[in-house]
Amino acid sequence: MSPFRASAALTDHWEHFDFAVEDGVATVTLNRPEKLNALTFESYADLRDLLAELPSRGDARVLVLTGTGRGFCSGGDVEEIIGELQRKETAELLEFTRMTGAVVKAMRECPLPIVAAVNGIAAGAGSVLALASDFRLLAESAAFAFLFTKVGLAGADMGSAYLLPRLVGLGRATELLMLGDKVKAERAERIGLATEVVPDTELPAAAAALARRLADGPAHAYSATKVLLTREQDMDLGSSVELEAMTQALLMTCQDYREFYAAWSAGRSPQWTGR
Amino acid sequence: MSPFRASAALTDHWEHFDFAVEDGVATVTLNRPEKLNALTFESYADLRDLLAELPSRGDARVLVLTGTGRGFCSGGDVEEIIGELQRKETAELLEFTRMTGAVVKAMRECPLPIVAAVNGIAAGAGSVLALASDFRLLAESAAFAFLFTKVGLAGADMGSAYLLPRLVGLGRATELLMLGDKVKAERAERIGLATEVVPDTELPAAAAALARRLADGPAHAYSATKVLLTREQDMDLGSSVELEAMTQALLMTCQDYREFYAAWSAGRSPQWTGR
Amino acid sequence: MSPFRASAALTDHWEHFDFAVEDGVATVTLNRPEKLNALTFESYADLRDLLAELPSRGDARVLVLTGTGRGFCSGGDVEEIIGELQRKETAELLEFTRMTGAVVKAMRECPLPIVAAVNGIAAGAGSVLALASDFRLLAESAAFAFLFTKVGLAGADMGSAYLLPRLVGLGRATELLMLGDKVKAERAERIGLATEVVPDTELPAAAAALARRLADGPAHAYSATKVLLTREQDMDLGSSVELEAMTQALLMTCQDYREFYAAWSAGRSPQWTGR
Repeated sequence: MSPFRASAALTDHWEHFDFAVEDGVATVTLNRPEKLNALTFESYADLRDLLAELPSRGDARVLVLTGTGRGFCSGGDVEEIIGELQRKETAELLEFTRMTGAVVKAMRECPLPIVAAVNGIAAGAGSVLALASDFRLLAESAAFAFLFTKVGLAGADMGSAYLLPRLVGLGRATELLMLGDKVKAERAERIGLATEVVPDTELPAAAAALARRLADGPAHAYSATKVLLTREQDMDLGSSVELEAMTQALLMTCQDYREFYAAWSAGRSPQWTGR
Repeated sequence: MSPFRASAALTDHWEHFDFAVEDGVATVTLNRPEKLNALTFESYADLRDLLAELPSRGDARVLVLTGTGRGFCSGGDVEEIIGELQRKETAELLEFTRMTGAVVKAMRECPLPIVAAVNGIAAGAGSVLALASDFRLLAESAAFAFLFTKVGLAGADMGSAYLLPRLVGLGRATELLMLGDKVKAERAERIGLATEVVPDTELPAAAAALARRLADGPAHAYSATKVLLTREQDMDLGSSVELEAMTQALLMTCQDYREFYAAWSAGRSPQWTGR
Repeated sequence: MSPFRASAALTDHWEHFDFAVEDGVATVTLNRPEKLNALTFESYADLRDLLAELPSRGDARVLVLTGTGRGFCSGGDVEEIIGELQRKETAELLEFTRMTGAVVKAMRECPLPIVAAVNGIAAGAGSVLALASDFRLLAESAAFAFLFTKVGLAGADMGSAYLLPRLVGLGRATELLMLGDKVKAERAERIGLATEVVPDTELPAAAAALARRLADGPAHAYSATKVLLTREQDMDLGSSVELEAMTQALLMTCQDYREFYAAWSAGRSPQWTGR
């Protein structure tokens, strides 16, 4: 656990998705397969709260996000979210949209790499959860659909109009967010939205292998890489170069850098400690 | 018409291109086919002024930009613009370059989606007009040429050095703007510069269908999507997430969101009003 | 030479790479083929200092960066850099990382276009030198490897976490910088990291032809294009449009723009002076 915990307790049980940590790999599995893992108010809240706790637990070096059944995540449940929102006042609407945005912000600011194992359709908010991850492994049958305009809302949701152009360019992002049409796995790979596409049956193994590699590797270095990638999207050239100089000098004082050189000198593989 | 008009009149007749509005779709047709629709001082001024008025007219939900004949737009006329500029003083040169930049800024800030139906060569300023549109439908025989350096000017013209890297990446943008060589339709699609490439004879129908879809759909949602895509290019992650939360809460109070849910509950298609 | 030199001398001889200027084309050739042109403390320092002087020399309009032998540049020498750094204090580590970052910053801010002729593996710092160039011509057998995490350091090094997402998108940059795996020439071209891939034997001629074209062309216009591309990565839309308007008006007062029109009027090719 982090040395900097005080009174706040860590959550014992997450009710609105399956959660497990095994050997450095935390996994969130959305588990409402009959609804293609549609999100509810509660699952959004649990995602937000888990992302706040996860870095302090000390037992996880990577987070995997996936779904059970045919879908990855079909977005906000039409009945339990869209229906409920019809009856809410403006202040409550804003509380809701801020919560959904907070999940994406927390994913991008989370110091752990996040792997989305996209086992099926990622629609609406589900597509943004995948978008906000660091790696997107897609099953061949998976697809994205940023379908917000199809329910009468802006295609800009939970940071999608910030993130998507930075992955696939402004032209393609405009098409995808404005029209909300389905993007199949093959096209997602071609335009830079999918990290890799694998046969459906191989997705669990591919996600496990990538998570394993990230958990067993120089975790501090991976974490710094992610954090700087996130921050430098919003920084200028000179400040970015300075931030990288500071970060790299810091990492040069850490164990893993010394371990690399010791291993190289001895002709063996490094034993990373992530410190 | 917008409820917030006062003394200023709307322009009755645009002399320097063809203009029509039909059933929510405004169309600007550059119409100097013998010059591949080269721009003049006057057509720039008319574009600038039309873009200022268009959102207030109230009869247009989408703008289509196209050309007659073999070309889309060959850029500034060599005789009528480049020749004339040879004889102008510095202050006038700046007035001209600011006007051309104002057209692009107005296109990006226009709350209506803009569809460029690129029927032939888009060269120089013509390529930037297409670049500043939200959708670029290209005829198979169309091509881009950011040929500014070939006339001795910077490849950075009318915002091209801002926009192009955000569509195709800094490496490709450097190549295209520095060298000014032709980019054929197929490559334009591959690198994210063209939304779609269609056979030459099908371009008018494809552009009409996309414009129809945008005009008949949830126009307020489309408009918000475009505006946020434009703005969030210049915003950081946290501010973007907040802007999207505010915008989405606003749209949740609008008719089209209620209409979606009513239609879904009744098992029918939504009837969008764009409000 | 620049009219604005005073007491500071230009360097006569660069010891840590081969340097030549011929007919407007400056060439830096990394020349430690037995080490795949690994960098040393001294070659970093020479690169930094050369980039500061180069624009003032007055005899170069373009810089070509290449390597001898099988490799382009394998990055920091394991013995002479990584080994040495094990024994340094924190303040010295930061002096080193700031120097390496200064090389990249100087490359991006250099008013001359830079062509990387990537003749073989570009690894670690070598991959960032190529990344910070304006054009990347790759031999078919060349490859990139942003392998920093493999030595226990952040994938964010010398500005790579700023630059790479702006070339290939945030998703692909995350994969490349976090994992550090090899990217072959074909994939580099496909994702926008290579300008062009040519057969190994044709690389020197292709690089010479591109350098020739840049040196013989409207050098002032090329330079302005590069500088604005660099700056507008960090600027908003409105400011970028204004900067381009100012720049273009400035260039309209220069010789090359007048020469274009004179040549066009006379039906001949322009004779660029770069002024």
